[in-house]
Amino acid sequence: MTNEGSYVALGLKEWKAQLDRADKLFGRLSSEEVLLEIAPGRNRLLYLWGHLTAMHDAMLPLLALGDRFHPEFDVAFVSNPDKSQAAILSHEQVRQAWKTVNGELWKGFEKMSWSDWLQRHTAVSEEDFAKDASRNRFAILLSRTNHLSYHLGQAVLALK
Amino acid sequence: MTNEGSYVALGLKEWKAQLDRADKLFGRLSSEEVLLEIAPGRNRLLYLWGHLTAMHDAMLPLLALGDRFHPEFDVAFVSNPDKSQAAILSHEQVRQAWKTVNGELWKGFEKMSWSDWLQRHTAVSEEDFAKDASRNRFAILLSRTNHLSYHLGQAVLALK
Repeated sequence: MTNEGSYVALGLKEWKAQLDRADKLFGRLSSEEVLLEIAPGRNRLLYLWGHLTAMHDAMLPLLALGDRFHPEFDVAFVSNPDKSQAAILSHEQVRQAWKTVNGELWKGFEKMSWSDWLQRHTAVSEEDFAKDASRNRFAILLSRTNHLSYHLGQAVLALK
Repeated sequence: MTNEGSYVALGLKEWKAQLDRADKLFGRLSSEEVLLEIAPGRNRLLYLWGHLTAMHDAMLPLLALGDRFHPEFDVAFVSNPDKSQAAILSHEQVRQAWKTVNGELWKGFEKMSWSDWLQRHTAVSEEDFAKDASRNRFAILLSRTNHLSYHLGQAVLALK
């Protein structure tokens, strides 16, 4: 493996490690448990799970890997707080979307070369990227992995 | 910058971003606030802050950057749960140690070349490293950044 490939592999390994933790935590929840709050009056596990799904779904166009599967998740889980919407997506819908989205992301990651990761992500213009080359796809991978860890730290509180 | 240097710079940028969030969150706490629990009956902010300080302190020998400054933090903040020790370190002791440890880490990071990051960390033997080269210093940087994010996600719950 080239040195460049080593760094990318490490970034992907950390993504995978956090995603595995999330799979274990969210995947085993009953229909009652998924409605538990992380602390009294705070977000429910279903909301966090849907929020992570929506953010991961949005990585597909951001990394130029394809269109989103579930743009409808944003109203329920990103642009509005938990318990503010009359209708929230179901446990089963979130579970399916989580699986689809992360599977598709991983397929995309596997096709990317190490140099692809240093290309600009699609939310930054060519002009801005010329001024700051750190706004690239590897930066998205690292920040989204940390975003996942951040909410995992909260999710465990509902269950312990 | 070489390509290798780009990945390292991105890893350091993400570390810095999460550390800045932690500085803002913990740095502004009053002596009363630092004793707030993240949720009823859970860890207090001072415990999380001390825990992160201890883990970051341990990165110094792990990355071959020098000896630890505060090994005494482990009894209070790593090997025992919160509220189990008669004497816990003070707000001021944690604040000072946090500053010292992270300052020293950053000084060390700045001296490391991109190839240093691909060397084995000191908790893995040469023999094991030969079998799995991913057990290197860059992996430690990524996993400790995620560890910081994990607890930041919890810490914000005490204050919102």
